[in-house]
Amino acid sequence: MAGTHPIVDVHTHMYPPSYISLLSSRKEVPYIHTPSSGDPRLIILPSDDDASKPPEQRGRPVDTSYSSFSEKLKFMSTHGITCSVISLANPWLDFLDPSTAAKTAHQINSDLDAACQQQNATSSALKLYAFASLPLSAPVPEIVSSIHSLATLSHTKGVIIGTSGLGLGLDDPALEPIYAALASTRTMVFLHPHYGLPASSFGPTAANYGHVLPLALGFPLETTIAITRVYLSGVFDRHPDLSFLLAHSGGTLPFLAGRIESCVAHEREFTVNGGDKPGPRRSIWDVLKTNVYLDAVNYGEPGMKAALAAAGGEDGQGWDRLMFGTDHPFFPPLAGEEKWLSVESNLRAIEGVCAGDEARKAKILGGNAIRVLGLDA
Amino acid sequence: MAGTHPIVDVHTHMYPPSYISLLSSRKEVPYIHTPSSGDPRLIILPSDDDASKPPEQRGRPVDTSYSSFSEKLKFMSTHGITCSVISLANPWLDFLDPSTAAKTAHQINSDLDAACQQQNATSSALKLYAFASLPLSAPVPEIVSSIHSLATLSHTKGVIIGTSGLGLGLDDPALEPIYAALASTRTMVFLHPHYGLPASSFGPTAANYGHVLPLALGFPLETTIAITRVYLSGVFDRHPDLSFLLAHSGGTLPFLAGRIESCVAHEREFTVNGGDKPGPRRSIWDVLKTNVYLDAVNYGEPGMKAALAAAGGEDGQGWDRLMFGTDHPFFPPLAGEEKWLSVESNLRAIEGVCAGDEARKAKILGGNAIRVLGLDA
Repeated sequence: MAGTHPIVDVHTHMYPPSYISLLSSRKEVPYIHTPSSGDPRLIILPSDDDASKPPEQRGRPVDTSYSSFSEKLKFMSTHGITCSVISLANPWLDFLDPSTAAKTAHQINSDLDAACQQQNATSSALKLYAFASLPLSAPVPEIVSSIHSLATLSHTKGVIIGTSGLGLGLDDPALEPIYAALASTRTMVFLHPHYGLPASSFGPTAANYGHVLPLALGFPLETTIAITRVYLSGVFDRHPDLSFLLAHSGGTLPFLAGRIESCVAHEREFTVNGGDKPGPRRSIWDVLKTNVYLDAVNYGEPGMKAALAAAGGEDGQGWDRLMFGTDHPFFPPLAGEEKWLSVESNLRAIEGVCAGDEARKAKILGGNAIRVLGLDA
Repeated sequence: MAGTHPIVDVHTHMYPPSYISLLSSRKEVPYIHTPSSGDPRLIILPSDDDASKPPEQRGRPVDTSYSSFSEKLKFMSTHGITCSVISLANPWLDFLDPSTAAKTAHQINSDLDAACQQQNATSSALKLYAFASLPLSAPVPEIVSSIHSLATLSHTKGVIIGTSGLGLGLDDPALEPIYAALASTRTMVFLHPHYGLPASSFGPTAANYGHVLPLALGFPLETTIAITRVYLSGVFDRHPDLSFLLAHSGGTLPFLAGRIESCVAHEREFTVNGGDKPGPRRSIWDVLKTNVYLDAVNYGEPGMKAALAAAGGEDGQGWDRLMFGTDHPFFPPLAGEEKWLSVESNLRAIEGVCAGDEARKAKILGGNAIRVLGLDA
């Protein structure tokens, strides 16, 4: 796949050394613990924090792929990726002490930006950029200041956020000044899941399937619910300049957009139908074509087709709104292969939908990210 | 759309009069209550049972479209539908007293079958068939007997079930004899949501959006989780002859199949990766092309594209596995239009994916249902 066009990975995570230290100092989810034998292990989901398992089997091993820039660059070379837009992995900084959250966020964001700057000064073949993390536990004015101060970070091209907002979700009216700041500064918001769904959603035998149900379904369903709440609460009506990049091709939003539209049209409690609740003014299809970008991390051609169609039609601007991603360092090969199955399956799906059209492939693999995020790649 | 080919609605519900009586006799969800003014109202979801609302605003009105065969036939004529495969609406018979469940189910299934038989004896233009309901609260041997006795009902072409099984979900090992009976009798299982997701999934402001979040997202996400649990537990490995028709184009299964496959391949606890949990043997793609049929109730072209591709490829047998449906009598027009928006949007999406290919359209609109369910339509 390493061809003549840039390949940009917009969905690639890291735990920089300062973030590893922070997680290692904690005893509650999220935390890193070091068992008496074996590698340190990362507990990022409550379901990982299973005291019935021996410590060396709890969570997942944290090897250097999580924290090392050289591992990131090696992974990029292996797959022909020429540019990565790095974000902290979940749960980002959602758990920080409110009084120091803004300062900690500034330090971690500045460190990551500086590392990208240093890399790009020394290599023209492998470029790095960053999505910053917001100190969402800080007072709102400090969050707003954090957003404005991102302009001083030359290699930072947006922010990554989870679905909890200030604790009540992304349709919380208290987020209004934050959305206003994100819109006025044209800051791309990379929305990524972390919290999943309540464990009871998956039934009493979920543990029979390891992490499959929370990872394969909980994550994308969480994203779908979160962005639908944003839409239904009128955020895109009030902030038409807001842009979201949705992880995992939108969760399942492209597949369910028609059903959402139908349920909105038939909702008796919305004012358009004589009820007392405002409901959204714009159609979900319009929002998908105007405010939403999708990564191409879907692992399958059927989902990629729906994403393209929802993003503007397979014959239209849908080709301009999908962006290649890998989810590195998650889903590593288990049998030691050099090329990652998780990356290869996304590349295959992109090849499939492009059906030999090199210009469209170049857009999804890198052109869209370069244009939309303003990368020098 | 009323053309030269049959149009078969595989997703269309009714509350026959005996079922209305049953619901009217109850005081817990599901139930029908008659406020002092206005129509009787149906409470089928716990979220409908909101004591803070006046009784005449709780739940949704139950008009004759729920229980009247003549209303069903009128709806069919309005939309050019020539055949309907009628199922009880959720929650079917999941709540019956165990000691009388099998008998009640037999009565309700026989009544519905007889009504279809009577209609077909008097009309060649508008045909009716039925999906039966299983007495899932009865002892397992009685459920198995119920399945075998369906062979005596000439107009019954399968069963409709929810996601709770015997109470623990559809991956419950106690369901093995039931799956064996469904497979050996080649009984189509129409899987339909009802229970949704835990209310906390939708956040503290869900009520701002009426029924939109539980209906637009809770329902399809419930179906997705349920069928994924069936798949992961190896039901399709053990019962390769089992066939499921999935409501709402599979919930979101076509969009997420690639992610499910990737998470299965990377699951350290599955035996293929050295763990101690069996995991599924067959790929989800194989199951989608062999054991799964999808209705075309998705309300959007993007989702319909994913459904087609997941069901066997847009150039392959995907065209043989999608079946038109309406979800009547739900989502009625609010402004009194004769043609229903919910039906029209599904027809538009089918037209869109067929792009003028009349043979493919004829398959989705009716040919597939006739072939797969064995209808004389």
